[in-house]
Amino acid sequence: MTPLPAEGRVRAVVEGVSPVVDGGRFPVKRVIGDRLVVEADAFADGHDVVVVELLHAAPDGRESDRIPMEPLGNDRWRAELPLDTLGRHAFAVTARVDPFATWRRDLAKWRDAGQDLTQELIVGANLVEAAAARTAGADARALSAAAARLRGTGSQAARARAGLDERLARRMHRNADRSREARSPDYPVFVDPVHARFSTWYELFPRSASPKPGRHGTLRDVIRRLDYVAGLGFDVLYLPPIHPIGHTHRKGPNNRTTASPGDPGVPWAIGAAEGGHTAVHPELGTLADVDALVTAAARTGVRVALDIAFQVSPDHPWAREHPEWFRRLPDGTIRYAENPPKKYEDIYPFDFDTPAWQELWTELLGVFRFWMSHGVRIFRVDNPHTKAFPFWEWAIAELKRADPDVLFLSEAFTRPKVMYRLAKLGFSQSYTYYTWRTGKQELIDYFEEITRPPVSDIFRPNVWPNTPDILHESLQHGGRPAFALRVVLAATLAASYGIYGPAYELAERVPREPGSEEYLDSEKYQIRHWDLEREDSLAPLIGRLNAIRRSHPALQTNERLVFHETSGDHLLAYSKRTADGSDVVLTIVNLDPHHAHAGSVVLDLPALGLESGSTYEVHDLLDGATYRWWGATNYVELAPQVRPAHVFEVRR
Amino acid sequence: MTPLPAEGRVRAVVEGVSPVVDGGRFPVKRVIGDRLVVEADAFADGHDVVVVELLHAAPDGRESDRIPMEPLGNDRWRAELPLDTLGRHAFAVTARVDPFATWRRDLAKWRDAGQDLTQELIVGANLVEAAAARTAGADARALSAAAARLRGTGSQAARARAGLDERLARRMHRNADRSREARSPDYPVFVDPVHARFSTWYELFPRSASPKPGRHGTLRDVIRRLDYVAGLGFDVLYLPPIHPIGHTHRKGPNNRTTASPGDPGVPWAIGAAEGGHTAVHPELGTLADVDALVTAAARTGVRVALDIAFQVSPDHPWAREHPEWFRRLPDGTIRYAENPPKKYEDIYPFDFDTPAWQELWTELLGVFRFWMSHGVRIFRVDNPHTKAFPFWEWAIAELKRADPDVLFLSEAFTRPKVMYRLAKLGFSQSYTYYTWRTGKQELIDYFEEITRPPVSDIFRPNVWPNTPDILHESLQHGGRPAFALRVVLAATLAASYGIYGPAYELAERVPREPGSEEYLDSEKYQIRHWDLEREDSLAPLIGRLNAIRRSHPALQTNERLVFHETSGDHLLAYSKRTADGSDVVLTIVNLDPHHAHAGSVVLDLPALGLESGSTYEVHDLLDGATYRWWGATNYVELAPQVRPAHVFEVRR
Repeated sequence: MTPLPAEGRVRAVVEGVSPVVDGGRFPVKRVIGDRLVVEADAFADGHDVVVVELLHAAPDGRESDRIPMEPLGNDRWRAELPLDTLGRHAFAVTARVDPFATWRRDLAKWRDAGQDLTQELIVGANLVEAAAARTAGADARALSAAAARLRGTGSQAARARAGLDERLARRMHRNADRSREARSPDYPVFVDPVHARFSTWYELFPRSASPKPGRHGTLRDVIRRLDYVAGLGFDVLYLPPIHPIGHTHRKGPNNRTTASPGDPGVPWAIGAAEGGHTAVHPELGTLADVDALVTAAARTGVRVALDIAFQVSPDHPWAREHPEWFRRLPDGTIRYAENPPKKYEDIYPFDFDTPAWQELWTELLGVFRFWMSHGVRIFRVDNPHTKAFPFWEWAIAELKRADPDVLFLSEAFTRPKVMYRLAKLGFSQSYTYYTWRTGKQELIDYFEEITRPPVSDIFRPNVWPNTPDILHESLQHGGRPAFALRVVLAATLAASYGIYGPAYELAERVPREPGSEEYLDSEKYQIRHWDLEREDSLAPLIGRLNAIRRSHPALQTNERLVFHETSGDHLLAYSKRTADGSDVVLTIVNLDPHHAHAGSVVLDLPALGLESGSTYEVHDLLDGATYRWWGATNYVELAPQVRPAHVFEVRR
Repeated sequence: MTPLPAEGRVRAVVEGVSPVVDGGRFPVKRVIGDRLVVEADAFADGHDVVVVELLHAAPDGRESDRIPMEPLGNDRWRAELPLDTLGRHAFAVTARVDPFATWRRDLAKWRDAGQDLTQELIVGANLVEAAAARTAGADARALSAAAARLRGTGSQAARARAGLDERLARRMHRNADRSREARSPDYPVFVDPVHARFSTWYELFPRSASPKPGRHGTLRDVIRRLDYVAGLGFDVLYLPPIHPIGHTHRKGPNNRTTASPGDPGVPWAIGAAEGGHTAVHPELGTLADVDALVTAAARTGVRVALDIAFQVSPDHPWAREHPEWFRRLPDGTIRYAENPPKKYEDIYPFDFDTPAWQELWTELLGVFRFWMSHGVRIFRVDNPHTKAFPFWEWAIAELKRADPDVLFLSEAFTRPKVMYRLAKLGFSQSYTYYTWRTGKQELIDYFEEITRPPVSDIFRPNVWPNTPDILHESLQHGGRPAFALRVVLAATLAASYGIYGPAYELAERVPREPGSEEYLDSEKYQIRHWDLEREDSLAPLIGRLNAIRRSHPALQTNERLVFHETSGDHLLAYSKRTADGSDVVLTIVNLDPHHAHAGSVVLDLPALGLESGSTYEVHDLLDGATYRWWGATNYVELAPQVRPAHVFEVRR
């Protein structure tokens, strides 16, 4: 016999709740100040009145008052939940048949039709009395009085008026019988600080930060570089690993397999006699210098992000102390990192299949804890997709539990589903394929994918036109104009973006060899000296873009990104606007770094908050020019050497 | 501290499994003989080989062998599961990192690159030995021997060949360590008989089945009508309620609130002194007649469907014996059915909020059980959306548990989400909005919605151009040609359809009053006599359509319904084809019953299995004409009085 349910009188249904990721398995991501828009399908059998409410528990477990949900039609309901606390929230949707609201609705109909109300008024009195019995104090007294009025000796009209009284309805709602309420599962929401969504990153190699050519840069040099970075409007300064670098099989310049005595090695070959993931490379400075950098950066409005690369050089203390954390060969040696038939002899990867996984996980977690104790609150994680997924879910949850403001950027240029999985597991931001998306349609398709639900509920893109590992061929061949247009795209398409500098602003673009995405003489293997004062530096353009981003909230979110029709394959037009429509930015970019292109832009006027046929001004935030436009179709011309793009403020 | 997982080394991930309804809360629906196509995203960290398998448990709990899933690219995997047992199946998807398959893949690469294999061969031997230790018998012996070969004194080339041996790979797969496998939840699938998907319904009122005008029809008359029904190609004969009809507040002809002595009343006002839901109306016959009808029908290939309407007349025995199953007024009387300010005094609805809900549910379940014991296997359920949803979920599960072949048709012309919920709860088929969809675009939109996932995974449309309750205005005004075109649409758009006859084939179309969807002199309130031999009967067309449906498997499913472009607002073109492409039916209908329309049809040739530019024949299954067509665009002309439609077999 199929068992009867414990309570068969739960007549309402809640389904189709959004936003929900994988049935509630993972939290949706929001930032402080967001209003979470919750929708659900809710209904019951028959025609009784259904009441739908949103429940909310804050990260500390405190439950908010029930928020009434409003019907949108077609049994869809909606409510908004303001999010003003960092951390893991939960919400649920409830629905129930409301006998009193149903009675009240019908009473008015019976009355208006002139029917005798004798029986109905007693039915109402019974409902009100039952509610009075469920509660105490003022409400109980008021409800008892109302029941008496309904039952009383007044005229039917007067008693009906008492039954329809608004205050009575509110009191009955407050004291409703919710014992047969349908309730959705609890769905999680993680609320991050605002800079999880809106951040502007600058990556530099401290080794090259010395003002003197030939001297190894230090963290103190980086402190002196802060004014430059902050002056350009960046708010996150990201440093590649700052730990001691291994000597065994150290790489030479341009990834040569042998190093000469003075070669500094690769910062990602972590660990030497001086220590491992919690030590500072002596040539860069000391832990005190890290503290000083974090403090000085904060003073300029910049947060320091450290790179966490979970792998070791053969000289790392862990390789000696914990060989069980690595995959070993039958002869007892540790397996190198490998991609058969290639071996990378300067690196040992961890073995996440080790029987000692608990110890390994705990130790790795400690690396984050260590740097958090030195004030670091943002981590760029190197190749997270080559570490076990359950580790990330556990480690990020554990770290955010006490410190919900800490952020993790996933450096995962891998398969899309793996990247999205890492986002679900807790990474706050992720690298993207932007670096390789240069064509008009592929840019549109990709940004539509990553800026809309379901992806945007879990995945926050941080787009990089270059990284130390990727000098895209469009930059190699497009010259300075390519660097200009790619940073304009990054800064205006995505709420978070970053550049690897000073290589970027100086348009460093010679590959190690033809067809390679590696830089010639890359800082990964050697110290470079950069002339920040160069005439042709893109720093002024980048500084202008970042200033525009700061003053235009439309650019600080990926919501409401809309692409507009343009003629030809080279002009790309898109807009962003704030939820209230008070800020609208329209960007038009010439994607061809070699030739001028002119053509028409056919604007989706409603997306810009404009009525069809209206006249409006577009004010170019890059060069200050203002144009008077009319209607949807307008003419633009962009020459790469003159201006890479229009970044228009749209003024009604 | 966030607790560590019990096992942190589950490195693979399974997500995005399909087909799944509401995260597995409800089963997807299939029929016997279907192959269930299961897809899932599966991957692991890093670059190890991932093995993905489909698990299946039959309704009796028996587990099938694991079915390997094949990669589709982009981390998507696929397998097919043949469904050959009625009832509730379950499937799950597993994924795991496979160390031996990874080793094998890499060994070939090391070998091809000419590397020394000393260590790798021992690694392999260790893996094989571990597998040998996990098993016994022939496999254990063979694996031990293979390990010895890998470790042996042969040349590296010979030992590598032994390691790459296909039989060894299969043995290792069979004996793999699955202890750290990722596994999806178990997802349910309900397998119905084929006629849950493909069925052709004929509804008639037994009261009007008498060959003699003026005499009350009987079930014996219905038996005599079987040849007619079966001869037209119908395979389900559906009868409105056959129970005793109440006398209190009995309705007269045309829904008059008072009946005259001879008026037969409404069959849905169930229950009188003679009995209730398990009794037969004496004027129709006896239980023995029901048995005889079911048996005689089966002999002609027709199944009998009974209408189950859970409501009672005031004279029903339950109203007296179980007043607690109804909503009562303070004066002790039972509330009538009502829609304030209207009351329906011939009907009492059940109160699903009653404290005695368990007894009520059990008794209602018993009604189905009773008729099932008389051989009835299909139930049309009247207004299921006004009964508590949990009741349906429980009752249908319980009834299908022992009798997985029983089918339930949901008569719910209500809000879309309510209709879909009833389908999820277990109803096998559902009424649809087809009855009101007459325009070209609304037909396309609606059929695209209901014939594609996610809707088609749970909802099986049974489309009716008319019912005793609905004489749509297009039939009232469109005359016989409207009846012709609407039945062509129903028969070719949907794998299941039905008509209310003989009103349909005789094009009965006078409304009770202008603007009403009710019939004048409806059989709901009085006995009618129908002249089945009328010259203008649509029976020949309907018989032809049903014969076409029987001989064309493309029309027996809603999968692969494709609409084709046509000129103008009146021509509608669509095709269906079988999965193997061996049967392709293209239907073109003139939706205007008043005027001829001509125009072009632009065919989606790949959807028809045709190459662009090819020549092919279209053979009209209605009139036998054959046309030679070329390419995508062809000309058609349809005059309502001459032919309502082309139903083409497409011949390559």
